[in-house]
Amino acid sequence: MATQINPPRGMRDFVPADKRRRERVLAKIRESYAAHGFDEIETPVVEDSDRLHSGMGGDNEKLSFAIMRRGIDQDALRDAAEQADPLALSDLGLRFDLTVPLARFMATHRGTLPSVFRSLHIGPVWRAERPQKGRYRQFVQCDIDILGEPGALAEAELLVAGSAALAGLGLDSCTIRVNDRRLLNALLDWCGFAAEQQPQALISIDKLDKIGTKGVVAELAVSDPQAAERIHQALNNWAEGIKAGIPLTTESILASLPEGLRESAEALEAAESLGEVADAVAAGGGALPLVFDPTLVRGMGYYTGTIFEVAHPESGSSVGGGGRYDGMIGRFLGQDVPACGFSIGFERIVDLVSELPGDEGEAVIVLVDKKLPVADTMRIKQALLAPHRRVRVERRPKNVRNLLDRAAAEGFTHVAQIREEQVADPASITLEPLG
Amino acid sequence: MATQINPPRGMRDFVPADKRRRERVLAKIRESYAAHGFDEIETPVVEDSDRLHSGMGGDNEKLSFAIMRRGIDQDALRDAAEQADPLALSDLGLRFDLTVPLARFMATHRGTLPSVFRSLHIGPVWRAERPQKGRYRQFVQCDIDILGEPGALAEAELLVAGSAALAGLGLDSCTIRVNDRRLLNALLDWCGFAAEQQPQALISIDKLDKIGTKGVVAELAVSDPQAAERIHQALNNWAEGIKAGIPLTTESILASLPEGLRESAEALEAAESLGEVADAVAAGGGALPLVFDPTLVRGMGYYTGTIFEVAHPESGSSVGGGGRYDGMIGRFLGQDVPACGFSIGFERIVDLVSELPGDEGEAVIVLVDKKLPVADTMRIKQALLAPHRRVRVERRPKNVRNLLDRAAAEGFTHVAQIREEQVADPASITLEPLG
Repeated sequence: MATQINPPRGMRDFVPADKRRRERVLAKIRESYAAHGFDEIETPVVEDSDRLHSGMGGDNEKLSFAIMRRGIDQDALRDAAEQADPLALSDLGLRFDLTVPLARFMATHRGTLPSVFRSLHIGPVWRAERPQKGRYRQFVQCDIDILGEPGALAEAELLVAGSAALAGLGLDSCTIRVNDRRLLNALLDWCGFAAEQQPQALISIDKLDKIGTKGVVAELAVSDPQAAERIHQALNNWAEGIKAGIPLTTESILASLPEGLRESAEALEAAESLGEVADAVAAGGGALPLVFDPTLVRGMGYYTGTIFEVAHPESGSSVGGGGRYDGMIGRFLGQDVPACGFSIGFERIVDLVSELPGDEGEAVIVLVDKKLPVADTMRIKQALLAPHRRVRVERRPKNVRNLLDRAAAEGFTHVAQIREEQVADPASITLEPLG
Repeated sequence: MATQINPPRGMRDFVPADKRRRERVLAKIRESYAAHGFDEIETPVVEDSDRLHSGMGGDNEKLSFAIMRRGIDQDALRDAAEQADPLALSDLGLRFDLTVPLARFMATHRGTLPSVFRSLHIGPVWRAERPQKGRYRQFVQCDIDILGEPGALAEAELLVAGSAALAGLGLDSCTIRVNDRRLLNALLDWCGFAAEQQPQALISIDKLDKIGTKGVVAELAVSDPQAAERIHQALNNWAEGIKAGIPLTTESILASLPEGLRESAEALEAAESLGEVADAVAAGGGALPLVFDPTLVRGMGYYTGTIFEVAHPESGSSVGGGGRYDGMIGRFLGQDVPACGFSIGFERIVDLVSELPGDEGEAVIVLVDKKLPVADTMRIKQALLAPHRRVRVERRPKNVRNLLDRAAAEGFTHVAQIREEQVADPASITLEPLG
């Protein structure tokens, strides 16, 4: 048995210390979101293949794990082979995000939910990506969404609640960058990109922090040198402001735009909407600073309005984000449902959180003689149980120091060394602090 | 869009009221188990196919959902078709229990865990069974296991902790039926069943409450009429005692045995071991009564010693159970690890729990004017946030009564009806009790 036995590739076990930490972070997030009026739901980890491959998941659809139909016979295998279509053998798949399941959930339960539904949805998702540092094939997503509210109240509630959750975890050095897809659309129109060029142009601009202004302009110049030159101007124009932080007010936003763009009705609408969001977040006690970032794109194709992304000084990539995505949640329902969401990058923040406030209570390690009868051992354990206290019994080993050091590292706070005469008189047992 | 859109067959969504209830039950269970010294772990929901099909899962292996390899090409499909082997296309599967993953976890992490490891393992599992009332294709298991402890301390700690968890949920009318596989082995030997007949004989006895003594004896008589007649005697002999409840003491157990069986060394060993467990559970403050049931088998083939099952008067099937299964956990590790486990039937008990003790805190519904600006709405929400309080803002609809009834049904405890003049003076807002 020389081979190392591991969980499946790219997936992780959590030993008790890790699990405890993750659960405490989740508990803090849940507490925060519940206070702000979000109601938790749960959906199965599996959805029908058709729904997973309905185009709502973008590139993630290609990364989904497919589940085989049960009872596949040789004919079915031959058909699949003939058509070179392995997916014909699959009827279900592991979800790759929580958004497709949420859209399906809304189609199933719309009638029993409040007309404005504030959803908290936490759970694992799976993507068959090449595993690498910090990127896993099973990971937890943690989303809040407001469904049914078309106005800026949705954005404001999400940003205030999301900020409160992050600040509650001690991550108050985060900044939230905000933009609006309508402003990006207006920008691309102003530059002269044709409608069919625009999705590709957004993909290029989204790579700005990886490939720089030069890289973006070079990519765009291939199809339209003139439009690329206008983007070049705009990006240069913005560079210093973004570095310093453009305040999220209608005035600052408009002032930062290239002159011609300011006259766009769509740009004006977006700037006013962003100003309204910023005012409402301030009024609602938003715990994190907001800045305007005209180059923020966020990858997914489904965003339609406000978009935001949370940056933390110690993290190279964003620790949260979201935006408005009207038109998608109602897809399975066959009726429009305005929607806006905010997602915490749980796997990233769980590593950033250093000390969690709040008390874990006492944890007592009880050392009994190796030969103490089982009933006596249980009597002692029973006597030591108390609210907010964990009790673990151990038989006293030769090397007590070693065991106690280990217990302290595991988070135990006290030790009870049971002497023979105490067995009959558990009330006489005293706890000594550990470590 | 006339078709109803549902989660995948046999799987469930949980709307907020259900989710809240499930999470509260889980939180109580976690709290209880943590106090008794169990440490929670987590494993991925997916395991390698080879491990899932290593024979440890019994019939459940056939019910597992298989995940397809990524990037299957036409050649692979042709090969699978030729061999009529769909599983050749699968490398992973959804777990069908938490025991196989626990065995794999131990093989991965043994070196970093305490020598006696008390594991709490909670999570969903999947079985492709025909869905029916109370039986789902995704359901939560909730297991505690003590690994590395060969003696009765393991049984005692599990039974005390499990009883405390159930009693903590108000399920104190449960009874725990206890038996020992060694006693069943001794019984079958005494009856004269050959070693190779014994597994089948256990399967028949396990059906006692479904097919009755006559049914069991008829099944067994097919292969060995003489041995079946001895079983007949034994079952008849026990019937009254089981009905009345045989106390779990070495003496009562021995007294209840057919005379010849009392002389079996294995039976004596088991009776003494059960007596030791019972004494230790009593000393440890076990919250639920234990009775001896010589006809208790529990399905899985892997049990080696004590077995137990929890009955609740309002539930037709058991609400928990477990036992000792030495020899299995160490399988992937290639070294023997004594093991004993207790599993709560989470999906069953979540329906039995009526009222959960403990306070959910205030929940306030805030009614604002439809036209109130977003920033003012957020200011009011912010003013009402408080620890242990949930706040949901709603725009005042025409039918306020309807909304408030609905809010009360959702668990809201208070309403704040915001008047125009209060917008500038949120301190003047008062909460009225709801319902």
